[in-house]
Amino acid sequence: MEQEEKSYVIGLDMGGTNSVFGIVDQRGTIKAQTAIKTTGYPDFADYVKASVEALQPIIEAVGGIANIKGMGIGAPNGNFYTGNIEHAANLIWKGIVPIGKMFEDALGIPVRVTNDANAAALGEMTYGVARGMKNFIMITLGTGVGSGIVVDGNVVYGSDGFAGELGHATVDRSPEARHCGCERHGCLETYCSATGVARTARELLVKYADEPSLLRNTNPDEITSYDVFLAAEKGDKIALEIFEFTGRMLGEACANFALFSSPEAFVFFGGLTKAGEYIMKPIRETYDKNILNIYKGKAKLLCSSLNGSEAAVLGASALGWS
Amino acid sequence: MEQEEKSYVIGLDMGGTNSVFGIVDQRGTIKAQTAIKTTGYPDFADYVKASVEALQPIIEAVGGIANIKGMGIGAPNGNFYTGNIEHAANLIWKGIVPIGKMFEDALGIPVRVTNDANAAALGEMTYGVARGMKNFIMITLGTGVGSGIVVDGNVVYGSDGFAGELGHATVDRSPEARHCGCERHGCLETYCSATGVARTARELLVKYADEPSLLRNTNPDEITSYDVFLAAEKGDKIALEIFEFTGRMLGEACANFALFSSPEAFVFFGGLTKAGEYIMKPIRETYDKNILNIYKGKAKLLCSSLNGSEAAVLGASALGWS
Repeated sequence: MEQEEKSYVIGLDMGGTNSVFGIVDQRGTIKAQTAIKTTGYPDFADYVKASVEALQPIIEAVGGIANIKGMGIGAPNGNFYTGNIEHAANLIWKGIVPIGKMFEDALGIPVRVTNDANAAALGEMTYGVARGMKNFIMITLGTGVGSGIVVDGNVVYGSDGFAGELGHATVDRSPEARHCGCERHGCLETYCSATGVARTARELLVKYADEPSLLRNTNPDEITSYDVFLAAEKGDKIALEIFEFTGRMLGEACANFALFSSPEAFVFFGGLTKAGEYIMKPIRETYDKNILNIYKGKAKLLCSSLNGSEAAVLGASALGWS
Repeated sequence: MEQEEKSYVIGLDMGGTNSVFGIVDQRGTIKAQTAIKTTGYPDFADYVKASVEALQPIIEAVGGIANIKGMGIGAPNGNFYTGNIEHAANLIWKGIVPIGKMFEDALGIPVRVTNDANAAALGEMTYGVARGMKNFIMITLGTGVGSGIVVDGNVVYGSDGFAGELGHATVDRSPEARHCGCERHGCLETYCSATGVARTARELLVKYADEPSLLRNTNPDEITSYDVFLAAEKGDKIALEIFEFTGRMLGEACANFALFSSPEAFVFFGGLTKAGEYIMKPIRETYDKNILNIYKGKAKLLCSSLNGSEAAVLGASALGWS
């Protein structure tokens, strides 16, 4: 009897709080899903054991491990070359965690590891809006700003597996540049992450002290990018200006990024993209204004086509096919 | 009789004024060299004809065309994908010039085309200081600033063949940012090219009007980066400050470039590298100060090991092996 093609992969999206597992088919449909707490297991071996226990029933649901080609893991500071999580600041396991090898041993299938932004890029290339593209740059707009860079159809991992940290590109060198969690100043993510947007909101509410705004109904320290979106939807001038500013910063930055790999597209992903044209219009306008002549009109500026809550698991799973 | 391995390649370094041809062996020795004027042939077909005539005797000198594996061309706006020169501002031929195909037809060997900075990167990887490296960034410091980016052992050409224009990275967004020939402002090359250094010299001579300097013996409009070097050698404070400033701008910029591909090295090439530690020390110090923590101590900052006058031909020739 001819051996059947293995039809599924497992994706693991490891966040600081939750770890979500999905079993995915070749068309990018999540056939089954489960989750455990990331924080519940001080000993990493216990985390792997709990994961395998949670996976067992959903693996059985697709006909057993023999039908599964591999597993892909998107994890903070996940290193594609080593298969390890290396010195992740937001996880309880310190130092080097050999997550790839431990899941391989536990499940008996090939396991590949990368970080969440690279996983997102793979997800778009495999199932999403970047299907068929060989050169594009993924920008993830979440609590921070991440990036996954695809050149000639491959994610750029660089000399050490940690390439593609465009969220830490210095975009402001002035003395007023914002301080970043990475201990440097003026990083893109201090302006264009969800927390960057909230920071901009607080700044502009002070700057335009005489301008009424719905955002003044919220404690400044508790303003979220979603509050800004809701206010923008009601035509709030300050809220619109916040997205305008954020989009301009992103457009300028992307015009610089294009010099590197002349991508056919930038793909934006994350909560902020829900702001739609409020943010995409200034991105496009500023990109077009700042891009070097030879690249003009070449790169598309797109939003992810994947369902937000599924995208991270899909992205991780994409690594399971390789 | 077994066919002998083809032992040589032809390199063509096309500059705005001169076109230099070399026949190169596998160790990177230029066995024979010739040149023609780039500007002497309004009809491009005549340029190819003159090139082939000039090449004939040096091809014969290595035993004929049968010993030659291929030809590589480094030319302004040379496009690796199409084999064309496309809209080169500084050449007399306008529009699209199918240089690759025309040399292939004339010589009967494979011909590959790229721009000079990518050729330089290939030269370093094939014969120079980047031998054995899979991930590095070449920065050429000439009249402009060029770059060639190598990821996973391949030059990054991007979606259109024109990737790698880091000389046009915006490094100053302030209102005082320098105007660039590309019609934008604050490009790296307005600060760190040979002409950028001369520009800095003129600015600092005004800024430190009371400080004596050997550079005041030259008409400000005629100061070259070589004058600045000679003055620095004599301990001239302003000259030293010029290289310090230039190196700091480069170090900051390279710290941003590292975020993209986490290279194992930056390789600097061109006249300015003759300034040695005057420029390399501030590059290193500023890079180390600005680099994101996870990349700290990883990338080497190197100068090209190729003989300056031969490097461009060697670089172009490296493309002939592929």
